[in-house]
Amino acid sequence: MERKQTAVLVAGSWGTALARVLADNGHDVRLWTRNPEQVEEINLHRTNARYLPNAELPTGIRAMTGLNEVLASAELVLFVAPSSAMREVARAAAPYLEPEALVVHATKGFETDTLKRMSTVLAEELGRDEDNVVCLSGPSHAEEVIIRHPTTVVVASGNPTCAEAVQDFFMNEAYFRVYTNPDVIGVETSGAVKNIIALGAGLSDGLGFGDNAKAALITRGLAEIARLGAAMGANPLTFAGLAGIGDLIATCTSRHSRNWRAGSLLAQGLPVEEVLKRIGMVVEGIRTTKFAHELAARYGVEMPITEQLYAVLFEGKTPESAVGDLMGRVRTHEIEEIAAASREKWLK
Amino acid sequence: MERKQTAVLVAGSWGTALARVLADNGHDVRLWTRNPEQVEEINLHRTNARYLPNAELPTGIRAMTGLNEVLASAELVLFVAPSSAMREVARAAAPYLEPEALVVHATKGFETDTLKRMSTVLAEELGRDEDNVVCLSGPSHAEEVIIRHPTTVVVASGNPTCAEAVQDFFMNEAYFRVYTNPDVIGVETSGAVKNIIALGAGLSDGLGFGDNAKAALITRGLAEIARLGAAMGANPLTFAGLAGIGDLIATCTSRHSRNWRAGSLLAQGLPVEEVLKRIGMVVEGIRTTKFAHELAARYGVEMPITEQLYAVLFEGKTPESAVGDLMGRVRTHEIEEIAAASREKWLK
Repeated sequence: MERKQTAVLVAGSWGTALARVLADNGHDVRLWTRNPEQVEEINLHRTNARYLPNAELPTGIRAMTGLNEVLASAELVLFVAPSSAMREVARAAAPYLEPEALVVHATKGFETDTLKRMSTVLAEELGRDEDNVVCLSGPSHAEEVIIRHPTTVVVASGNPTCAEAVQDFFMNEAYFRVYTNPDVIGVETSGAVKNIIALGAGLSDGLGFGDNAKAALITRGLAEIARLGAAMGANPLTFAGLAGIGDLIATCTSRHSRNWRAGSLLAQGLPVEEVLKRIGMVVEGIRTTKFAHELAARYGVEMPITEQLYAVLFEGKTPESAVGDLMGRVRTHEIEEIAAASREKWLK
Repeated sequence: MERKQTAVLVAGSWGTALARVLADNGHDVRLWTRNPEQVEEINLHRTNARYLPNAELPTGIRAMTGLNEVLASAELVLFVAPSSAMREVARAAAPYLEPEALVVHATKGFETDTLKRMSTVLAEELGRDEDNVVCLSGPSHAEEVIIRHPTTVVVASGNPTCAEAVQDFFMNEAYFRVYTNPDVIGVETSGAVKNIIALGAGLSDGLGFGDNAKAALITRGLAEIARLGAAMGANPLTFAGLAGIGDLIATCTSRHSRNWRAGSLLAQGLPVEEVLKRIGMVVEGIRTTKFAHELAARYGVEMPITEQLYAVLFEGKTPESAVGDLMGRVRTHEIEEIAAASREKWLK
């Protein structure tokens, strides 16, 4: 593929790792950060130590602080801002974006308060058709991508031409394999909601349960997220793919995640305030449980695992009695009726 | 539920663990073994140390060697013989089975040579309608069930009345939750073929790859098994359930499985004969790769991971070049066209 101009906003760990993929594929990458010291570190020392310790960055990546400079003649613009900052970053970038630039994001999570998906936020701020915004997701620890360990991701867009163009930018034969999927709602919803299950897995381990319980929690947790997604218009099969179960496996089997740790502390009977104090950082899974609880009510979807986690987090229920209530539910079938909206759209 | 007579054949680790579930639910359990010493151990000492060290068995379980005695007036008969012995055990049991007895099996794998599913083998030998045979599967290490750790399984049968009757026998509120699923082909196929992916996961770890690669292998491996299953008439959503991804998670995240170990030895460049010699036991994943390779050809299904494993195992290909060929495949979509047979049967 010929060398093209690309822009990555912002220079966190995932943004930097994806910048390396673009640079390895022969593209020019301009990496945006507000921090002049980070610009200097990246351009002079080829490191980004705060986000990716020990990584050496290729020369194809140039960091800069000016959005106009970063976005000038960029044919692909990748947004990787935190979900809470996405709207603000998109608004700041909008005036400088080339009209024909491909817009991609690789951020997981909903916008707080509105619970909008990231592609909706980008479409609104950039004045684009939402179908032309592409979402990149999948099981991909930045720490492994930066050292070129084999990784697969999915790029989702309502417009297959956009998805395939983005696939061509990122895919290479050495370590980065990219699949396309037309189901943006499914890819974004599973990425945004999966933290709940990581939290639950930590809780299960913290209660001293084994692999059977954890596998059940992941599988049935995914089933209820797929049920929510289908009610929102997603294809239930997307949840069995890379952005769904793939990402969950990479997340839930790691004992280093903050969500897992939060769950295991909850299992010891600590109240949520104390858990947050001990971890000392945002625990996405706790916010997400609140969001999913709200969405379940909005779409009229049954989410028993989410409801029990919500009760433990916000209503003082003990983890033991939450588990008891999950096990003691009435008998059910494994595969429920698929929501009519999803069935008509995807499964014909 | 009132106390009923049940029979379990044979007294291995999974048979013994499921016997405990039936006994805990208040049923009389007769456990069959050919070995008189094992009968004595179980009935006098309440242990089955060779298969489940440290476990104490409840008094509701009685071991015996006579099939006529075991099966007399049994309302539910659970077959848990190894897949290679299932036909022989079923044939021996057939004359003594009550005509109205529920027939269930909890054995993973196909019959060697014929590649028949276990419910087909049982239907043939017992002279039953295959729809009335029930398959029990899911993420369930026997070592955890025997100590009553929370566990979920699925019971599949073409006849919902049979599936629900079996659900009632096994389900309890304390630690054993049972879901029904009408898709026997999907449940049996994923149970029989999943070992391939455990083998591949060991290979990936042995090559020094990380969580991204392993999550990709599990997810894309499941996708190709679902593709095979759909061509055989299964519902693709079954593979996202407890007998599919659930069982895979419990299997692939364990570093103690023989399949994982075999894969990691292959990664070191050892030939398959040497791997088998070092492990000193049957490695299911190696046999299964051969079976799946044959089924893929029979049903005209593309299974790239299986094909690469087959080439490493039986055609002397190096693991490194197998990985290279997997990463270098042409670009594809994540969710393929679902086989027409499956679409018509399940997704309406």
